[in-house]
Amino acid sequence: MGFDHTVDETYLREAIRLSREKMDAGEGGPFGAVVVRGDEVIGRGWNRVTSTCDPTAHAEITAIREACSRLETFSLEGCRIYSSCEPCPMCFAAILWARIGSVFYAASCEDAAAAGFDDRKFYQEICKAVEQRETPVRQLLRDEANLVFDAWRAKPDKVAY
Amino acid sequence: MGFDHTVDETYLREAIRLSREKMDAGEGGPFGAVVVRGDEVIGRGWNRVTSTCDPTAHAEITAIREACSRLETFSLEGCRIYSSCEPCPMCFAAILWARIGSVFYAASCEDAAAAGFDDRKFYQEICKAVEQRETPVRQLLRDEANLVFDAWRAKPDKVAY
Repeated sequence: MGFDHTVDETYLREAIRLSREKMDAGEGGPFGAVVVRGDEVIGRGWNRVTSTCDPTAHAEITAIREACSRLETFSLEGCRIYSSCEPCPMCFAAILWARIGSVFYAASCEDAAAAGFDDRKFYQEICKAVEQRETPVRQLLRDEANLVFDAWRAKPDKVAY
Repeated sequence: MGFDHTVDETYLREAIRLSREKMDAGEGGPFGAVVVRGDEVIGRGWNRVTSTCDPTAHAEITAIREACSRLETFSLEGCRIYSSCEPCPMCFAAILWARIGSVFYAASCEDAAAAGFDDRKFYQEICKAVEQRETPVRQLLRDEANLVFDAWRAKPDKVAY
């Protein structure tokens, strides 16, 4: 016996609908997402990378930003996200930072790769040790930055997240 | 013989300076970043998660968004980024999407973890297979989303990124 995903499919179809509508409108790549709390859609997002000159404007990121802005919070604990495509590593980490509890997606990273998007390649790159990555990465001045972390630890009025 | 990183240290110190100044100002966690093209700083960012209710407002993301907005482009090819801390997986993937060519950082992910931030844990989570992750992830309606990717492939006026 599987779960009944009728309700989840309804939200996922809204994400897929957005992916097509906004792609047709020339806003960016074919990706849509919705954030849901209980039975209420609290954020809608779609890819706006090329139309807004923002490489971070993926569907999930923009849906999370809308939901947080609307609820005036930086935590979406207890919420779910529905994305027309498996989240790329940027978006999956954003989902974790937002404390979203569960993820539903339709197309896979492999499907996105076949449509010309780099999600799968980026998963491979990010999951390598820093010194193994194709992107040159260099650490300097570690001690100087750690003085600021010391100040953070000692800060009496800090807002943790 | 090592490379001379005097110039890189200057930019990295600007990122560290921002991390302290904006933390002291109550804008968010102790993180700063600058994007540089040639010898020009084209974007400055700092953590604004708690002050702007945006879990994606990390230093690198906000620096990239500022640089792209200023240059009116979604590609920062040929640019470098200097971050007061090793980028989390969200920010590292954003750096890849932005086509930034090299990364300099000061504090490490381990240092961030010791200061209470989840970067290292999120690297571990994201680098697991989807079905092994702690976050429940479920795929549904793959075929319906792939119809939109078909439309993308066929779209004559698409802007790839």
